[in-house]
Amino acid sequence: MKDQEITQVIKAWETQNQAITDIFNKYEDSYYSNEVAPGRNRAIYLFGHLIAMSDLLLPMFGVGEQLYPELENTFISSPDRAVEALPSVAALKEQWATVNQALSDHFAEMDRSNWLSRHTRVSEADFEKDPLRNKLTVLIGRTSHLNYHRGQLAFITPRV
Amino acid sequence: MKDQEITQVIKAWETQNQAITDIFNKYEDSYYSNEVAPGRNRAIYLFGHLIAMSDLLLPMFGVGEQLYPELENTFISSPDRAVEALPSVAALKEQWATVNQALSDHFAEMDRSNWLSRHTRVSEADFEKDPLRNKLTVLIGRTSHLNYHRGQLAFITPRV
Repeated sequence: MKDQEITQVIKAWETQNQAITDIFNKYEDSYYSNEVAPGRNRAIYLFGHLIAMSDLLLPMFGVGEQLYPELENTFISSPDRAVEALPSVAALKEQWATVNQALSDHFAEMDRSNWLSRHTRVSEADFEKDPLRNKLTVLIGRTSHLNYHRGQLAFITPRV
Repeated sequence: MKDQEITQVIKAWETQNQAITDIFNKYEDSYYSNEVAPGRNRAIYLFGHLIAMSDLLLPMFGVGEQLYPELENTFISSPDRAVEALPSVAALKEQWATVNQALSDHFAEMDRSNWLSRHTRVSEADFEKDPLRNKLTVLIGRTSHLNYHRGQLAFITPRV
């Protein structure tokens, strides 16, 4: 059993995912090669970054390996333009949907004690010192992270 | 009594507030008259917007009136530059701290059933249809909203 609070956090995460999906369905694929602002990241880079970050939740929550480990180097370890060949927007959209579905499926299975337990990036000793460093905190933080970059992606819309 | 999940949501909100505070302590006040990107909102406008939005939580949660109702017209109902005379950054910083402290004090008093209850912007009939439209959902959403604009405020840092 989950309590209602956890359901609400998961729902907020899914709402943000949908908002990102909507942004990348708004224009033709080529449009996402634009920088979100002069000298800043390209929209396609931010999309890959969000997919790679969500994909990392699978090992962090101890429910599986990354589905697309190759994205980590391109979109997390490297800044935009450091890696020349990017996947297509169409390929990224498919990976985005697959990662989110895999996570949603796992989230539906996780009970309260699992949500409030340690994730794999924090040691047992550190978790004992601060038990709020649990999986729920990670999901709350990732929901905000999605919205952080959504605020930047909002700038691709032409100013009228 | 609150449960741990609610404590974690409040903590995430406070973490975002601190991150915004840090951004506005980073440069001299005059710097925040810059647009975050060409043709976009000025940083000072986004700051006022976040204060006015947080201030509105007091009536939404039924714990008081807005402390600075005059901010609503300048920073929510009007787009940037529509209102000519803005408060100083120093005045906004004080209002930001005051609003956040008032909210933190109220949050500390609110028990679980209060958090999961209706806020004043949703009708009793609508709340019955969707009981997730409660105060906790609002705070989760507002935490993401802070981060949405924090992502934009990150663009004021000069590109090196």
